Amino acid sequence: MAKNITPRSENFPQWYQDVIMAGQLADHAPVKGCMVIRPDGYGIWESIQSKLDYRFKETGHVNAYFPLLIPENFMKKEAEHVEGFAPELAVVTHAGGKELEEPYVIRPTSETVIGHMYSKWLKSYRDLPILINQWANVMRWEKRTRLFLRTSEFLWQEGHTAHETQEQAEEETLKMLEIYREILEDYCAIPVIPGQKPAHEKFAGALTTYTLEAMMQDKKALQSATSHNLGQNFARAFDIEFLNRDNVLEHAWTTSWGISTRSIGGIIMTHGDDDGIILPPKIAPTKVVIVPIFKSELDQQSTIAHSEKIAEVLKKELGALNVKIDYRDNMKPGDKFFTWIQKGVPLRIEVGPKDVANNGGMVVRRDTRDKQVCSMNEIATIVPQLLDDIQSNLFNRAKALLGENMMKVDTYDEFKKIFSEKGAFVLAHWDGTTETAGKIQAETKASIRLIPNDGELEAGKCIYSGKPSKQRVIFALAY
Amino acid sequence: MAKNITPRSENFPQWYQDVIMAGQLADHAPVKGCMVIRPDGYGIWESIQSKLDYRFKETGHVNAYFPLLIPENFMKKEAEHVEGFAPELAVVTHAGGKELEEPYVIRPTSETVIGHMYSKWLKSYRDLPILINQWANVMRWEKRTRLFLRTSEFLWQEGHTAHETQEQAEEETLKMLEIYREILEDYCAIPVIPGQKPAHEKFAGALTTYTLEAMMQDKKALQSATSHNLGQNFARAFDIEFLNRDNVLEHAWTTSWGISTRSIGGIIMTHGDDDGIILPPKIAPTKVVIVPIFKSELDQQSTIAHSEKIAEVLKKELGALNVKIDYRDNMKPGDKFFTWIQKGVPLRIEVGPKDVANNGGMVVRRDTRDKQVCSMNEIATIVPQLLDDIQSNLFNRAKALLGENMMKVDTYDEFKKIFSEKGAFVLAHWDGTTETAGKIQAETKASIRLIPNDGELEAGKCIYSGKPSKQRVIFALAY
Repeated sequence: MAKNITPRSENFPQWYQDVIMAGQLADHAPVKGCMVIRPDGYGIWESIQSKLDYRFKETGHVNAYFPLLIPENFMKKEAEHVEGFAPELAVVTHAGGKELEEPYVIRPTSETVIGHMYSKWLKSYRDLPILINQWANVMRWEKRTRLFLRTSEFLWQEGHTAHETQEQAEEETLKMLEIYREILEDYCAIPVIPGQKPAHEKFAGALTTYTLEAMMQDKKALQSATSHNLGQNFARAFDIEFLNRDNVLEHAWTTSWGISTRSIGGIIMTHGDDDGIILPPKIAPTKVVIVPIFKSELDQQSTIAHSEKIAEVLKKELGALNVKIDYRDNMKPGDKFFTWIQKGVPLRIEVGPKDVANNGGMVVRRDTRDKQVCSMNEIATIVPQLLDDIQSNLFNRAKALLGENMMKVDTYDEFKKIFSEKGAFVLAHWDGTTETAGKIQAETKASIRLIPNDGELEAGKCIYSGKPSKQRVIFALAY
Repeated sequence: MAKNITPRSENFPQWYQDVIMAGQLADHAPVKGCMVIRPDGYGIWESIQSKLDYRFKETGHVNAYFPLLIPENFMKKEAEHVEGFAPELAVVTHAGGKELEEPYVIRPTSETVIGHMYSKWLKSYRDLPILINQWANVMRWEKRTRLFLRTSEFLWQEGHTAHETQEQAEEETLKMLEIYREILEDYCAIPVIPGQKPAHEKFAGALTTYTLEAMMQDKKALQSATSHNLGQNFARAFDIEFLNRDNVLEHAWTTSWGISTRSIGGIIMTHGDDDGIILPPKIAPTKVVIVPIFKSELDQQSTIAHSEKIAEVLKKELGALNVKIDYRDNMKPGDKFFTWIQKGVPLRIEVGPKDVANNGGMVVRRDTRDKQVCSMNEIATIVPQLLDDIQSNLFNRAKALLGENMMKVDTYDEFKKIFSEKGAFVLAHWDGTTETAGKIQAETKASIRLIPNDGELEAGKCIYSGKPSKQRVIFALAY
């Protein structure tokens, strides 16, 4: 048991914080509510970035970079947008030794400034679609912050597209939601539920906001990615117009979609155990660490040489940067093992003098802790296979948790009981009003996470008001 | 001749600006002195990033992310540092609807906040070296700005390392300079001269600043990357201390090094011609564009089908994302060719009905405009070979220009004549004083770009003061 980590059963939020510190994933910055993403945490983000970026490009998107600062008046052009973001803005009032004539805000999101540029660039339907993505830092001054999950500055990508028709914009919005699902489920091993946000939880200025919600080990929901159909709202606010096929000036149909460093928090809370984070192999920056075990200088030489032989074989299979050797000579083997456990490396190979003699190594899984002796001949086939097993085990285990804790509830008493005791994803009928949703949340802290995309239509009565409902929605406590 | 581009001979700065607009590489942002990096410009930065990032990781560096905002008082802890950067700072005074107790500045560079974190993390010599890099945006409020070359916000990487000894810090500083040289010369095809900055041109707070200087086509120098040995200056200011091997507390030796989106300006001004940018194949996001040429619908089908066959072969050789087909059907072939010329794509393959009949294509080089018919069988070998040829041709042509315009000068009259007429890299003796350098710059606009790393020691007299000098330095007009 890790002494530096509070058990999950005792205090889940403290466990989360401890896991991050133990794995050196992030640290608190000397700036209120901001974080430093340390190399072991940043490496996870780089993995997610590279998978996403490839999928974005494969689907015809290109990257660009827009300015960090946004003229304050831009924020006011879309009425709902300013209402949503105004309380969280950081404002630059002075620059170059002078007070600015008009203040700039640090982007909390870039619809406004990107909309301004699109209005300059867009002339004709021939210029459409515009399919641009940006990798960037953004800032939202948050009151209560938690590393990765909610910080005043965070890293993300924000896609911003413009289309000829409403249908194309809707298609794009759903296409990107599907790419997020793929990255979250197939790479991060986080099962997610796709759906729509109710009106009161939409992105400020959107027509429709789609979301992917995941269940963390404490049964709370984590909003893991969102994709917004913005309709013509921002096009009207920023004059994003084009001459259509009939030579008539028309407003474009725009979308935006984003995923952030918050997903690292999702990985921690989906897969971690009481010893720390567990990384799904497909996004682990280091997939295998080889630890030579020695007491004498002679053993040091032979175990390191043998470790390097193993590394050579595995680097060919897994990539040169994905296999590490632990060369440290000032630490006991158990302590070395523990540092790698706490960094969540999926596989560890222990190489002692016996393993040198037997021309093999002891392969240890991070998820199950299972150990198996593996000969040099087998290593190139067994290691990739074990990595695949770990990947599916992590996903299946999370999927099982979600299955066990997703339930249909038809009475408000049962609903209240669930959220006072343990939490869950509760499928319940709701009358569709913001008022009812607000009352339920005030009384139980549970909010509507989403209206499932694949939810069956089923007539019923709102658990709170008794009014008619056409479809169940998912309630949960949320991050 | 491009109608949208002023010839270089007429007005070089206007040519530069026109090339950027014609190639859609960047645009002016609605924020004073800031730019939007458009997809075709950003793709170049992504190429440079990926090459650099791989080399950083190969040499043991890891990436991390530190906060955008820096407490204002941090800037004041290193005396030279604040003097150098204070006039250029952008200041956040309000956030979350309130005035801040202490203002934050947007990072102009991150030595201070990273130094603060290192002092928290560093305990023992066992924790050294720390080899961290950050990809980030930074902000320096500039008075006169020019796209890519000098903007108030720009993108860069900043490496920050800490070492046990002065020697190790110096070794790191030079190692990174060499990696920059490799990227600039071997990938960007920009010949550079490595050397030291004179004291008055050093990074604010550094012991030694190393630089790589390149000659643009107008004979002006572009500082293309810098690497700083910071000695113990920042370690003292931020208490970056460790217990050394004798168990004594000691200040660490730190370095920092950076290269920015300015390098895109360097590529434009090194290789561009009167029709626009020319991209070195190794960093061109699109290496080959295939343009089907058709009038009838039947020809459209057959030329597109044939283009796709060629693309399939080339994608295997060059990577799936590096080969494009121009499907546009609303533009004349000549206009299509011209858009690709202005984006600098190294090779264009024209596919008309005759090429379909002959099972080949017409391959056209961007640098020399040479055309050659190429059969389907040859394409997989000829195209990569032509790309190599273009890469070396661009480098050699730039190297020749540098050779022709680098000269030893021994009298101030000749020196003044050169800089009043045409510009050059002038190797001249200098007495080593900031005063003399200042007078020369005031009279001729030429400044000391560097003291060459491989400059031979040669006793001489300062061209201005006549005082003794041990080595020639390089003077030039500079960006």
